[in-house]
Amino acid sequence: MNHLVPLDNLVAALSRLPGIGRRTAERMAMTLVQDRKGLMRILANALLEADDGIACCERCGNVTLTIKNPCDLCLQPRRDAQILCVVESPGDIMKIEESGGFQGRYHALMGRLSPMHGTGAADLRVDKLLRRIAEENIEEVLIALGTDVESDATASYLKEILATRAVKISRIAFGLPAGSAIEYSDSATLARAVSGRQKMD
Amino acid sequence: MNHLVPLDNLVAALSRLPGIGRRTAERMAMTLVQDRKGLMRILANALLEADDGIACCERCGNVTLTIKNPCDLCLQPRRDAQILCVVESPGDIMKIEESGGFQGRYHALMGRLSPMHGTGAADLRVDKLLRRIAEENIEEVLIALGTDVESDATASYLKEILATRAVKISRIAFGLPAGSAIEYSDSATLARAVSGRQKMD
Repeated sequence: MNHLVPLDNLVAALSRLPGIGRRTAERMAMTLVQDRKGLMRILANALLEADDGIACCERCGNVTLTIKNPCDLCLQPRRDAQILCVVESPGDIMKIEESGGFQGRYHALMGRLSPMHGTGAADLRVDKLLRRIAEENIEEVLIALGTDVESDATASYLKEILATRAVKISRIAFGLPAGSAIEYSDSATLARAVSGRQKMD
Repeated sequence: MNHLVPLDNLVAALSRLPGIGRRTAERMAMTLVQDRKGLMRILANALLEADDGIACCERCGNVTLTIKNPCDLCLQPRRDAQILCVVESPGDIMKIEESGGFQGRYHALMGRLSPMHGTGAADLRVDKLLRRIAEENIEEVLIALGTDVESDATASYLKEILATRAVKISRIAFGLPAGSAIEYSDSATLARAVSGRQKMD
């Protein structure tokens, strides 16, 4: 087979997408080459337009229109400006917003501590978090990270560096998911549900 | 959540890639937005360069540089010009070339008969195949399609319309894959291996 540089480059670029291995990238590239509806150019233009039109909010990290920075969530006056919800990524902000369960402001770390992947504290938006806590008179920092080892390590790290600040630190509750039953819950979930039990008023 | 049109468009375009559902497309889009190494633009440029630089050979359908059309495989004088291997897609040409087992020329149909997906004979490059058989003095048409129902239907259809032409029609052999044993073969494979038995010389 003769080498087709543009095809090789396309496969290499597609392989960098999350969850896409070399084989899948090759299949995608071949589909794009054979496509007769201009999908190659449609996708290229969508990427260019997203690259121009979309950015992460400089304040909270949320995905926003480039022309709206800081983003709507940062600027909405009705939101509770004293509670700051710390999440791993902009996608988490969307999920929590969809839930309708939170009315404060957000701060995305853009990752979590992961020695395995070479992500240290300096790679996260922690400096920015500390500045915001000081400048925005934050009273409570709600840590909304998951329950895996890396998330737990990140939560512990945040708790440590925030210890000297005059803020309340909280973490989202872990327990039975909505609609679940004791019968179908795993031990780890039940143990956390028991240790995190709440007083009934 | 406010609607971000460029993000929605990107997710829609990514969803059109083979094997990519809405969820995966959303995850890809978020990764691209957060990426700090310019992956969004790298991928866009790779797509634009592939769209400009790569095309399907007008003669055989093989993927080739736009500036080399007809492709190298069609023009190589050393290849046997009298046997034409009919495949479903350009990817199949690559696979057979890698095998080193075929030295003739190719013809990709760009699909197979599939009432389920609305692909009829008119959507395949059959007219072109008939023209090539006449113009290029083809002596043998080797049908290199798979063994599923749609491929079998396509092979039968080709056999029928080629019946009146002065060409030998053959189909690739089905039987035990290389390195396999009777013990581990399924019934359908064994049945075809027996019915397709070959005389030992």
